Amino acid sequence: MESFKKFWKDYSTIGDIISLLHWDSEVMMPEDARSERGDQIAYLSSLSHKMFTGDECAKLIDEYNNYLEKNLPINKEFGKREMLILERDRNRALKLSSEFVEKFARLTNFAHGVWAEAKKEKDFKKFEPTLNKIVDMSIEMADKYGYANEPYDALLEGYEYGEKASDLEILFKSLKNSLIPLINEAKSYPNPFKKEVSQEFQNSFNQKLPSILGLPNTSSRLDISLHPFSTGMGAKDKRITTRYQLEDPISSIFGVLHETGHALYEFGLASMKEYPSPVVSAVSLGVHESQSRLWENQVGRSRAFWDYFYPTMLKEFSIYHYDLPFDDFYKFINSVNKTKIRVESDQVTYNLHIILRFEIERDLISKKIKVSDLPEIWNAKMEESFGVKIENDAEGVLQDVHWSGGAFGYFPTYTLGNIYSAQLFNQFFSTHQSFWDDVSKRGDFSSLKNWLNKNVYQKGRLLEPKELIKQATGEEPNSEYLIKYLKSKIQELE
Amino acid sequence: MESFKKFWKDYSTIGDIISLLHWDSEVMMPEDARSERGDQIAYLSSLSHKMFTGDECAKLIDEYNNYLEKNLPINKEFGKREMLILERDRNRALKLSSEFVEKFARLTNFAHGVWAEAKKEKDFKKFEPTLNKIVDMSIEMADKYGYANEPYDALLEGYEYGEKASDLEILFKSLKNSLIPLINEAKSYPNPFKKEVSQEFQNSFNQKLPSILGLPNTSSRLDISLHPFSTGMGAKDKRITTRYQLEDPISSIFGVLHETGHALYEFGLASMKEYPSPVVSAVSLGVHESQSRLWENQVGRSRAFWDYFYPTMLKEFSIYHYDLPFDDFYKFINSVNKTKIRVESDQVTYNLHIILRFEIERDLISKKIKVSDLPEIWNAKMEESFGVKIENDAEGVLQDVHWSGGAFGYFPTYTLGNIYSAQLFNQFFSTHQSFWDDVSKRGDFSSLKNWLNKNVYQKGRLLEPKELIKQATGEEPNSEYLIKYLKSKIQELE
Repeated sequence: MESFKKFWKDYSTIGDIISLLHWDSEVMMPEDARSERGDQIAYLSSLSHKMFTGDECAKLIDEYNNYLEKNLPINKEFGKREMLILERDRNRALKLSSEFVEKFARLTNFAHGVWAEAKKEKDFKKFEPTLNKIVDMSIEMADKYGYANEPYDALLEGYEYGEKASDLEILFKSLKNSLIPLINEAKSYPNPFKKEVSQEFQNSFNQKLPSILGLPNTSSRLDISLHPFSTGMGAKDKRITTRYQLEDPISSIFGVLHETGHALYEFGLASMKEYPSPVVSAVSLGVHESQSRLWENQVGRSRAFWDYFYPTMLKEFSIYHYDLPFDDFYKFINSVNKTKIRVESDQVTYNLHIILRFEIERDLISKKIKVSDLPEIWNAKMEESFGVKIENDAEGVLQDVHWSGGAFGYFPTYTLGNIYSAQLFNQFFSTHQSFWDDVSKRGDFSSLKNWLNKNVYQKGRLLEPKELIKQATGEEPNSEYLIKYLKSKIQELE
Repeated sequence: MESFKKFWKDYSTIGDIISLLHWDSEVMMPEDARSERGDQIAYLSSLSHKMFTGDECAKLIDEYNNYLEKNLPINKEFGKREMLILERDRNRALKLSSEFVEKFARLTNFAHGVWAEAKKEKDFKKFEPTLNKIVDMSIEMADKYGYANEPYDALLEGYEYGEKASDLEILFKSLKNSLIPLINEAKSYPNPFKKEVSQEFQNSFNQKLPSILGLPNTSSRLDISLHPFSTGMGAKDKRITTRYQLEDPISSIFGVLHETGHALYEFGLASMKEYPSPVVSAVSLGVHESQSRLWENQVGRSRAFWDYFYPTMLKEFSIYHYDLPFDDFYKFINSVNKTKIRVESDQVTYNLHIILRFEIERDLISKKIKVSDLPEIWNAKMEESFGVKIENDAEGVLQDVHWSGGAFGYFPTYTLGNIYSAQLFNQFFSTHQSFWDDVSKRGDFSSLKNWLNKNVYQKGRLLEPKELIKQATGEEPNSEYLIKYLKSKIQELE
């Protein structure tokens, strides 16, 4: 057992170093170093892959299983879960040959440049032949992984274990039916900031947030990157980023709240006493996203949150020279805008973007539609759901990076995150009704963080994603609480 | 030969990643991550050590040597040099068992804390038992490495190949004899800055410097750390740091100039067409230091340099509200202060600090003096050379970190750097007499950078350190040019 622990520590160490190489390349690295950095990441990734799929790992699993059979350690159940998770991940990894993995990595690496160029020129035709290859390889990959019902499930499983396209279809249909009338009823509110807010002022406010929400400054950093992200290079080294728009200082704040949610989850996981272990890891992308969305939306767009932070924000932003009425500000951060661009969209519209992508990529992987038909299908669906006309491919089918990376099955986890976050928060609040008072009066978020720590963070991968939500809330995952939350928010603003 | 190149590329990649782990820990890392970071560095260092000393490396050397014997490749001479350098380094590394290396690493890691504590309490007695162990192990290490004349040579060789204590003794004696009267004759000039200069203002000026001196912004960064340093995590990723004192804005600038000199050398090395290779590496610490000192002192403390940069500096520092006469400024940056602290000392006094340390550590390693006598010896020598009285151990024998790290033989390379820099610059200037004009009128440093590129950077480890200096300047290394430079500087100010 000790040799397995040592092995897993080394394996985790390599993973942490790879995370630093990535973080540095997005936040710090001089631009000419990109290709060398690629070599560095490739070297360690290959080392890590060899460790995971190699014979020594198999031998250690056998030894560990034997030990668990023949002894009665106090943590026998935990050990069995560790081996179940590890073997599951390992068997999946072994289904692809290293040649296939490398070929796919080269293709998607190349595709990133082609996609960026096509998006710049607003011309899907330029991306079509490459995307065709990615879709073909993704279908081949699904066949290699294997599935019971449809190939999309095999890809989805990599992001959200236990999730099925047929279940998502039902879940998303009820959500979509509720969202479309909601979006048509909701209002858009204008940006109340009359002047630009400098990056220094925004940053000065943002730097205060993570530690107040519960992420210690001594174990984390907040920096700037092109796209906000969250990562970790150790149990006590969680790093988040945001980006700054001078005319809309709100966007950097919500970037920080979102990424802090991710980082709190990772920080909580790493405080499990069994760290590092295959079980001490995020259970799924959907649950991960629920943690970011919960702090961004349920908490960050609440009246209580801003009752507490508004004076500080005005002070840090040096807004004394004109009126910025709280009400205008509060409406703006909860405005519904039906934007065509997913990453710029509000919390209501966002889910329609995701459902559209899910429907399209599921049909692509089932060969029901062809890559060449994508722009037409995309634009028709946008008109149907949003009532908006797409003018060109850049604001349509080419807007997102995911497909160029071969990440089919990833999109639905964003909306699962929204659904889970509303359901989790509803359950928390039903037993912690003084929470909004704690927040608005004292900026005290500890009851929420403690509840999440107990019900989500410290669960690691002990339960499957849906089981975790069920155990935490007493109900199967369902979209009822998200719809209720969005409805009440819209009504509150009117 | 191809398999050796692949091996060396992987080995270099690991080294670059280790450099990033170190850089990040000094510049970015949240404090609670220190122990995990130690594990990460230890993991990769052990991997790197195993690669270097392992059987595969030996096999590849044999194959490469066979190939060179049986074929006539165009780069046969280069290949032979590669193997000579590699075998020399490898044989040295193999002389210490991994147990010994680990024991020494644990001891010095522990000693760092003990030294810091003792320095804080200004009490050498607290450090004495630990330093005793380090000295004992260093003597043991020298025995393992082996030597012809005295044990100190075996340690020195690790930093400055081909250098001997007996040669240093002669070189340093003549230098010391010239420096002591010079120091007594030289004047100290007061700080002419009447107000603090903010870190933002200083940084704004400093960020301009490296690229003007020839280090491209697209391949480098300048950040802040506790102690200035220079490192690289790839051929096109050279990073330097400085530190800021608000009341003395000059110190951060000279930090930048010094570290830029180191980085230019490393950047020039990595542009050798054979990169990466055992030959494409700094030839010695003395030559490395000559590159930093040359840009810091010969260039950075020159009148021409400041003729060009002074107006920019005043502008960036927002110094309009009071007079800062150029002459006062120029005297201040060339002031001689006889300070007791090495890292705060001027370019004249500095070398006396080094010679004192060399004399002491040589005697320590030869067992001519005992660790317990160090404070007394230190203080007596300070009085003799500087005419100053040491009040406590913190400003005396405990001031430097090096001995706690077991780095005996490191100090002399600082003064070798000063000697080499004066000798190199003298040779360059004798054939490029328009240089000061190019600098003062146009900020054009290209002739110097090109000369160094040809005569130092692109030589890699093709020559031994002393040969390199001789080939570049036509003379054996000697202290004449350093003394001449310092004398003329002092006379100029009077």
